[in-house]
Amino acid sequence: MKILAINAGSSTLKWKLFQMPAEEVVASGQIERIGLSNSKEITVAGKQKIAEQFECTDHLQAVERLLKLLTEYQIVSDLKEIKGVGHRFVNGGTFFARSTVIDDDVLEKMEKLKILAPLHNPANIMAIKAFKAELPDALSVAVFDTGFHQTMPEENYLYGIPYEYYQKYHVQKFGAHGISYRFVLKELLKLMQAKKSKTNAILLHLGSGASICAVKDGLSLDTSMGFSPVSGIMMQTRSGDVDPSLLLYLEDQLGVGTTEILKILNERSGLLGISGISPDMREIFANRQDHRARLAISLFVNRIVKYIGAYATELGRVDAIVFTGGIGENIPVIRKLICEKLSIFGVSLKETVNGATKAQVAKISDAKSVVSVWVIPTNEELMIAKDVYRLSQNKVQDVNVRKINE
Amino acid sequence: MKILAINAGSSTLKWKLFQMPAEEVVASGQIERIGLSNSKEITVAGKQKIAEQFECTDHLQAVERLLKLLTEYQIVSDLKEIKGVGHRFVNGGTFFARSTVIDDDVLEKMEKLKILAPLHNPANIMAIKAFKAELPDALSVAVFDTGFHQTMPEENYLYGIPYEYYQKYHVQKFGAHGISYRFVLKELLKLMQAKKSKTNAILLHLGSGASICAVKDGLSLDTSMGFSPVSGIMMQTRSGDVDPSLLLYLEDQLGVGTTEILKILNERSGLLGISGISPDMREIFANRQDHRARLAISLFVNRIVKYIGAYATELGRVDAIVFTGGIGENIPVIRKLICEKLSIFGVSLKETVNGATKAQVAKISDAKSVVSVWVIPTNEELMIAKDVYRLSQNKVQDVNVRKINE
Repeated sequence: MKILAINAGSSTLKWKLFQMPAEEVVASGQIERIGLSNSKEITVAGKQKIAEQFECTDHLQAVERLLKLLTEYQIVSDLKEIKGVGHRFVNGGTFFARSTVIDDDVLEKMEKLKILAPLHNPANIMAIKAFKAELPDALSVAVFDTGFHQTMPEENYLYGIPYEYYQKYHVQKFGAHGISYRFVLKELLKLMQAKKSKTNAILLHLGSGASICAVKDGLSLDTSMGFSPVSGIMMQTRSGDVDPSLLLYLEDQLGVGTTEILKILNERSGLLGISGISPDMREIFANRQDHRARLAISLFVNRIVKYIGAYATELGRVDAIVFTGGIGENIPVIRKLICEKLSIFGVSLKETVNGATKAQVAKISDAKSVVSVWVIPTNEELMIAKDVYRLSQNKVQDVNVRKINE
Repeated sequence: MKILAINAGSSTLKWKLFQMPAEEVVASGQIERIGLSNSKEITVAGKQKIAEQFECTDHLQAVERLLKLLTEYQIVSDLKEIKGVGHRFVNGGTFFARSTVIDDDVLEKMEKLKILAPLHNPANIMAIKAFKAELPDALSVAVFDTGFHQTMPEENYLYGIPYEYYQKYHVQKFGAHGISYRFVLKELLKLMQAKKSKTNAILLHLGSGASICAVKDGLSLDTSMGFSPVSGIMMQTRSGDVDPSLLLYLEDQLGVGTTEILKILNERSGLLGISGISPDMREIFANRQDHRARLAISLFVNRIVKYIGAYATELGRVDAIVFTGGIGENIPVIRKLICEKLSIFGVSLKETVNGATKAQVAKISDAKSVVSVWVIPTNEELMIAKDVYRLSQNKVQDVNVRKINE
């Protein structure tokens, strides 16, 4: 059967079509600039890459266009071949701990979650409704980036603020990158031939967005991203953790409001803000004769090292550290700079293997390392397709872990 | 010679009169509710405690009152006996790394720093000017809570925000409790018979305000308090670190501005906000049958454990952990809960000694502990008096470490 994995952003629709359970990619692509002028579609089928300009005013049009091109480019002969559609859903609040078949009740809950991810959740919902309308017979499944972190204990998901803000307004740590964490954790357990319930690991998803997850006995114990994607470690353009008093102070200095300061913390901070050169780690390395470029690298590594130290302490015992995401998979020197500062935990890298590892699975620690260190490329779309396939085989619904107050 | 140590808050003036170099406390006291109605003075001289109500509209009046009562209660026979006055100064920005004799140039720099600590620095400056006017012959010295942290490296004092906000607006981590850290570090080195330049330690100042400091080779490497006193670990009424997006979200939910949210994060959060019972750890323990009381304890311990883990990792090797401040000195169970979670670093407590230690110096780790753990009561006033005495003996001025941009 064919399964579509969908990742809808506020103005994009990324997709990958899988043949399941073979896990083969039949085709993939994305539609960009939805709702803006000069929308663009890029489709890759086999070795063929096609790009076209067209007008696309909303996600419904984008979905119609995507389904039309699947037959137009003969990727499928009949849309009925698509038996399931899996949607990445950014913030599932406390409703959803596991991937869930989307019915009216689920959609109603999703509507309530819009306020927690105002940029992403509405786009996700539009795409879900559009696919349901166009492919009524296909199984519609939501896969949540926050779901994996629903096992965090209260002391880790609560902030030190008045408790009623958690009860009334759902203010808590939600985390992110849960689909990626689930994927690399599954791969790690296979590689280590380890039992999930007996494995402690620290997972580093270092992409343009980046976070770290402490896994205890196979479950998320803690994660660096919080209520929103701006907090935690420093990212390409996001600040990571800052003193909250900065907001008022900068509002006064710059003469702007909170919304504008948060925009700066999200879009002009991190590697870009410190280096003044680029949000791209490779470009920053190319300019490392510059003081601010070196500073950007130092801050990036420093925040990660501190979170690893905090999480190793919480865990008490760490079996493995895993690097994934664009930076984690492809930039050996960043892995080296991080691991060099983990000597207190007995981490020791096999430098030749680390240096040679890009976008492939590898164990990069040496024989004497107390903690094994791995590179495991993530594959969030495949994880989505696997969840859809699994749910299509046995329609087990999600069991809610905690109920959000209504 | 007699030396006065002064700690001026926005509406208080706390003081301690020392006989130096004997380090004897001659008298101490405080004036409360300055600028409010029903101001109150409390004076302790020897075993005598005197409390009086009076009207006091500003810090100048408070200083006049204090000097009058010193002769009135025959604590000194002549004010000329007071040879020096040391002032705790909350935020010395990047101007002041060490205690400094206050001349016109120093006062001018202090005026520039008002913006960084708008609640505290203006009160400090008022008190300094009042004492200079009343005791023109006494040496006037400023002792900075931020000074100790001026040795932090860039990667630790910078936030991951646009670099120009550091350059133009001095946005950086300043830290706090530096006077306390200097005091307990000196005591620790004596107890361990260790060399400052070869000692790594993690110092926990757990009072109503609370922070943690990583000391590498005798110098501050990192500290949990940041640009303002609201960040870092969770405190009695302060939240500690939160996701900056919370501010905008809560502004929308509560219909208030950033100033009001920061007031909530400073005054109604932390142990008080989570427990809903009290900011006082002893009261919270007395109510530990209550879920939220237990939660407040868990969050408090959890944040501290994570910072210790982060700092131990940065340090690479930890020789000692020191507890000080009201909670650190007096509540053995909190020390126990923290140290139990530090097993990954080989911390092992001698429970009988820990349980019996309140407000006194003690080594509370056992013989097999890899890291020695200590309780060392802090004495910030004595540290101030010692600095004044030292500067009165050899008038070496402070050498600025870095210059704030003007």
